Amino acid sequence: MARTPTGESVLARAIRVLDAFTADEPSLTVGEVARRSGLHVATASRLVGELTAHGLLERTADRRVRVGVRLWELGARASPTLGLREAAMPFLEDVHAVVGHHVQLGVLDGADVLFLERLTARDAVINFSRIAGRLPLATSSSGVVLLAHAPHELQEQVLAAPLRPVTPAGFGSPAQLRAALAEVRRGHAAVLEGHQHPDATGVAVPVRDGDGRVVASLSVIVPNDGRGAALVPLLLATALGITRVLRRPAGGGTRTEGGPSGDGPPPGQAGVTRRPRPCRSPCR
Amino acid sequence: MARTPTGESVLARAIRVLDAFTADEPSLTVGEVARRSGLHVATASRLVGELTAHGLLERTADRRVRVGVRLWELGARASPTLGLREAAMPFLEDVHAVVGHHVQLGVLDGADVLFLERLTARDAVINFSRIAGRLPLATSSSGVVLLAHAPHELQEQVLAAPLRPVTPAGFGSPAQLRAALAEVRRGHAAVLEGHQHPDATGVAVPVRDGDGRVVASLSVIVPNDGRGAALVPLLLATALGITRVLRRPAGGGTRTEGGPSGDGPPPGQAGVTRRPRPCRSPCR
Repeated sequence: MARTPTGESVLARAIRVLDAFTADEPSLTVGEVARRSGLHVATASRLVGELTAHGLLERTADRRVRVGVRLWELGARASPTLGLREAAMPFLEDVHAVVGHHVQLGVLDGADVLFLERLTARDAVINFSRIAGRLPLATSSSGVVLLAHAPHELQEQVLAAPLRPVTPAGFGSPAQLRAALAEVRRGHAAVLEGHQHPDATGVAVPVRDGDGRVVASLSVIVPNDGRGAALVPLLLATALGITRVLRRPAGGGTRTEGGPSGDGPPPGQAGVTRRPRPCRSPCR
Repeated sequence: MARTPTGESVLARAIRVLDAFTADEPSLTVGEVARRSGLHVATASRLVGELTAHGLLERTADRRVRVGVRLWELGARASPTLGLREAAMPFLEDVHAVVGHHVQLGVLDGADVLFLERLTARDAVINFSRIAGRLPLATSSSGVVLLAHAPHELQEQVLAAPLRPVTPAGFGSPAQLRAALAEVRRGHAAVLEGHQHPDATGVAVPVRDGDGRVVASLSVIVPNDGRGAALVPLLLATALGITRVLRRPAGGGTRTEGGPSGDGPPPGQAGVTRRPRPCRSPCR
């Protein structure tokens, strides 16, 4: 692999460039790209040039740079979570039609919950999540559900690190978080009132694949009025519905696509379990 | 930029590797990656190794490779179409609740329509589109709407190329396609009965940004029973609703997020127009 004098590969630096763009600042000048990626301006400029030539970045009218739709396409077209997301989407819509506010689908990635999907109502209560956004596991209902079913090593890692609650209602001690994880493992939903914002309650349940493994969290964010827990039965039943679809064999009747080039229903992409990256020893 | 003896950059070859993965074949062996990307196995293996180390690819339990969720995250987090997709999503859900079948949001990219979103019912009629999938402009209702409002050069390019209709109902002559484009420009929807499949009708309308530019197509795929055109008023009104949201200034009251790190509502990403790549001369 081609390497720079510092030993870092071209690919590694290109990824640092792509990583500079966020939902908050989707367009940057080349100078900002250099600063955020820690690269010399000349290096950043060369990389931006090549990434732009390949469509992974795009130049805007005001001489800034942003992520190109080609990068989205490469990531979305064969995403490992596509099957999960497609199986869950009709159920998310149903919950959203009944509950309003925010309905979310999250997966474990590293020590974060990564949100694959979020449906939002115009007048929804405050929520911090975004599509392709992340939250720490210990501060959100989705995260607590995923952590409760994560490998033991990851749980201990999160419990050993500073918890950094976002609000006074958040988990301030490992003992509180440990008790919440045990509750979830006993089959309860995670109902976190005011942990992300005083006005919002997060309610999350696990989503299992056909083999019973927890592959995602299904959650709603609703006003913090003490009524969040009433939504648990709906969420539990909805999660069962998603599992039922994930359990079906590939092409098992729910998909009707088939292209002119003879492509049949897409292979089952359901049940992709994400091995949490921080877990270096064999995971349980 | 580091280049191989053949003059192709490492980045270019890495993109060829990523491009090997599709919705139909989301996981490949390294040998298959090499064959599809036209690289030597040793080269493909090295690139797969580095892309995997960065999380852009992932190894599966059966010694295959697939796209990593990290690639999806990089592309989705700051996607230029995020604002458009988020503005449109509640409207897509409403149409889907009423019409069922398939509801789609597409954008022009090169000489294709690229589908940003697709909502699907379990018992939906046949449809060939997929999220992050593409269709040629001349064979789909979404494509015809986007082409009708595309730069003149792109229209002439598509009209000059072989049309390759998918079914006998499809456009077989440039004159037919030209007439359809003119109809759409006069304010009509594109209603294509049986163009992609004898059993399906596509109905599409343009979605404009706050400046009146066509930035997307909104479409439904319904049974080919002669009743597709009845959905045009619903689609036209829905497209107006999406434009109304796109017209609002950034942070204009529809978004409520704000993170603990002080991030306010995301900057307005609406109204991103995609300059079609094949248009080399100044576009109108």
